[in-house]
Amino acid sequence: MPVDELKRQLEIIKRGVAEIVPEEELVEKLKKSLNEGKPLRVKLGLDPTAPDIHLGHTVVLQKLKQFQSLGHEVIIIIGDFTAQIGDPTGKKETRKQLSWEEVLENAKTYQEQIFKILDPAKTKMVFNSEWLAKLTFADVIKLASKYTVARMLEREDFAKRFKEGQPISIHEFFYPLMQGYDSVALKADIELGGTDQKFNLLMGRTLQKEYGQEPQIAIMMPILEGTDGVQKMSKSLGNYIGINETPQEMFGKIMSIPDTLILRYLELLTSVPMETINEMKIQMETGVLNPRDAKVFLAKEIITQYHSREAADEAEREFIKIFREKELPDEIPEYKVPGELIDGGVVLLPKVLFSAGTVKSISEAKRLISQGAVLVNQEKINDINFVLKPSKEPYTVKVGKRRFLKIIFEK
Amino acid sequence: MPVDELKRQLEIIKRGVAEIVPEEELVEKLKKSLNEGKPLRVKLGLDPTAPDIHLGHTVVLQKLKQFQSLGHEVIIIIGDFTAQIGDPTGKKETRKQLSWEEVLENAKTYQEQIFKILDPAKTKMVFNSEWLAKLTFADVIKLASKYTVARMLEREDFAKRFKEGQPISIHEFFYPLMQGYDSVALKADIELGGTDQKFNLLMGRTLQKEYGQEPQIAIMMPILEGTDGVQKMSKSLGNYIGINETPQEMFGKIMSIPDTLILRYLELLTSVPMETINEMKIQMETGVLNPRDAKVFLAKEIITQYHSREAADEAEREFIKIFREKELPDEIPEYKVPGELIDGGVVLLPKVLFSAGTVKSISEAKRLISQGAVLVNQEKINDINFVLKPSKEPYTVKVGKRRFLKIIFEK
Repeated sequence: MPVDELKRQLEIIKRGVAEIVPEEELVEKLKKSLNEGKPLRVKLGLDPTAPDIHLGHTVVLQKLKQFQSLGHEVIIIIGDFTAQIGDPTGKKETRKQLSWEEVLENAKTYQEQIFKILDPAKTKMVFNSEWLAKLTFADVIKLASKYTVARMLEREDFAKRFKEGQPISIHEFFYPLMQGYDSVALKADIELGGTDQKFNLLMGRTLQKEYGQEPQIAIMMPILEGTDGVQKMSKSLGNYIGINETPQEMFGKIMSIPDTLILRYLELLTSVPMETINEMKIQMETGVLNPRDAKVFLAKEIITQYHSREAADEAEREFIKIFREKELPDEIPEYKVPGELIDGGVVLLPKVLFSAGTVKSISEAKRLISQGAVLVNQEKINDINFVLKPSKEPYTVKVGKRRFLKIIFEK
Repeated sequence: MPVDELKRQLEIIKRGVAEIVPEEELVEKLKKSLNEGKPLRVKLGLDPTAPDIHLGHTVVLQKLKQFQSLGHEVIIIIGDFTAQIGDPTGKKETRKQLSWEEVLENAKTYQEQIFKILDPAKTKMVFNSEWLAKLTFADVIKLASKYTVARMLEREDFAKRFKEGQPISIHEFFYPLMQGYDSVALKADIELGGTDQKFNLLMGRTLQKEYGQEPQIAIMMPILEGTDGVQKMSKSLGNYIGINETPQEMFGKIMSIPDTLILRYLELLTSVPMETINEMKIQMETGVLNPRDAKVFLAKEIITQYHSREAADEAEREFIKIFREKELPDEIPEYKVPGELIDGGVVLLPKVLFSAGTVKSISEAKRLISQGAVLVNQEKINDINFVLKPSKEPYTVKVGKRRFLKIIFEK
């Protein structure tokens, strides 16, 4: 048995994972796979109700990509059966019922996005209706007999709702059972998921054992923090980076993340070797590498994945240009607006600029505005009769490339 | 609307019932039925796993018979689907899985017994596999969505097991759901059951409402005490009277019940009018009617139902004959066995009878024994060399029709 290869695979598989249950069995499965030259079947279940993929979702996809690179078989399950059933109670908005056409449409959208990461030639995509729709009532009873109510109620969300007296409909117990049964139907060796999926992944293990199969290994990936560095990345929180966003948007968002996320994003979202990442870590700790430059590197790695190297370079140039444009000098002349300029509660910006001596005439001010050369608080303005309302906060105005003015209203 | 008829029907329906949920709705349903001339659909579910019917089971069947006599439609559901599924956990011996042939065989046996009470022409018998086997996984999910885990865990047996940490498999929740769904499939107006079935009967109400139907009325009959007058009648406790037992067995068992059960058995197990039963009650309270005679009346009523009037008369005669045979006189001569008769720890009965002067010779004793004319402690003996072991309790011996002897061993 090639011991070095086992070690190499384990190292790659363990990169960034939160938990492997149980690790000993993973080692055994890998050994067997290497000895017999038989790839492992690695499963990921996807819910086709929300087909917009952001970087948070790609954490597991990156892991799948690594499995592909190691020669294993990747199977993506589209939970179309679950999506078509929906949630008959109608109590949870998140589980809306989809038509078969919508499911297909979503699956197609998924596929396009997923194949930006995974190798289409090495990815098997299946719909779980293939086996779930065929189950009879008797099969369902058999499935339900494999798990107890008490154990199901141990799942964190169920436990909480049960304790708080919030209703849990009996059918809700079937979502984890279905996901677990998918592993039985596929004879999965490994199932991937976020740490929030632990219960469901272990359900797969339990059911496989009950159905006389070797139980799968559960590999849990961490939940990715969003661009705010605190909350879980999610569309509803607005702290996400969608993989269909433009290079420009991606670059800007990544440059905005806190420094603490740089290494984590590199580990979980890119294929940059761990040696490089560890080196960057030391360089940042010793001040050799500026975090800002590390972010540029990260941003370009990510944009290269979802767009191209050229798009990444272009996004960098564009970002730097805008950044420079918006950059303010350390010293800016201040101008206190005299009361007589205020008319009807506001002042005309061209008048203020002329009165402060920033421009030579009101008409010059208007011309520059119409040319898009005037920024108020770093935002370009277009209205030649732009007015300012008296405010406690000063206005910072940039005119052309080099002229700046801080406009202050007296209290 | 024929108010008198409504009153009459209600009176008959309410005879002996433990609970009607809700009674107001029963009145409404009856009114509507009378106005529209449309019979009510009265449902009873039977579990085909244990096809021996005893009087305990007939309490609900008597009620069905009354509904038939009032012109309503009686539907017996054989839970063949449930029986065929069995209990996949194999933990509960009571729910063993049956083959389709066994179910059919049991159903036939049931039918034969049930039609001793119900009118075959007015009884519809259906198998619930007819609709349950057709349910898809999606249908099952829909069904399961109609009820919450917490409410299911309120069922007494589930509550107890859950509290005590005993496992409840998820599929067990489906037995009440299936029974409830049967009511939906049949559009039942009324479901009958024992008081122990309350949860399941109300499940039918809930599910009918969920499926947009008018909810059924649950009519609960009391659980019949067995011949011991204390425990629920059941085969395993040995305190039952099977409806396939011989007239002789029935007569004997009924004569053995405590007096307190006489009126209850009359009310729940016979068609004797309530006026007669109430009269008998007064007569017994005032000493006009001997409880023993009331039992004879009850026994003959029951035997007439399951056999015939003639069989009842015959059973009575036979019972009285045996009873007389076994009857002991008030005064019985006593005989203390002298030590010299004891040989090898025992005494020969013929020797004792001769020595006591009950028979004229040992050979007469042996002849009478061989003729079956000798009873020891009211049991006929056959062995001419029958021996008695010294005992603290005296032996009562009857020889022929009139000779008695109490044999006493000295300590």
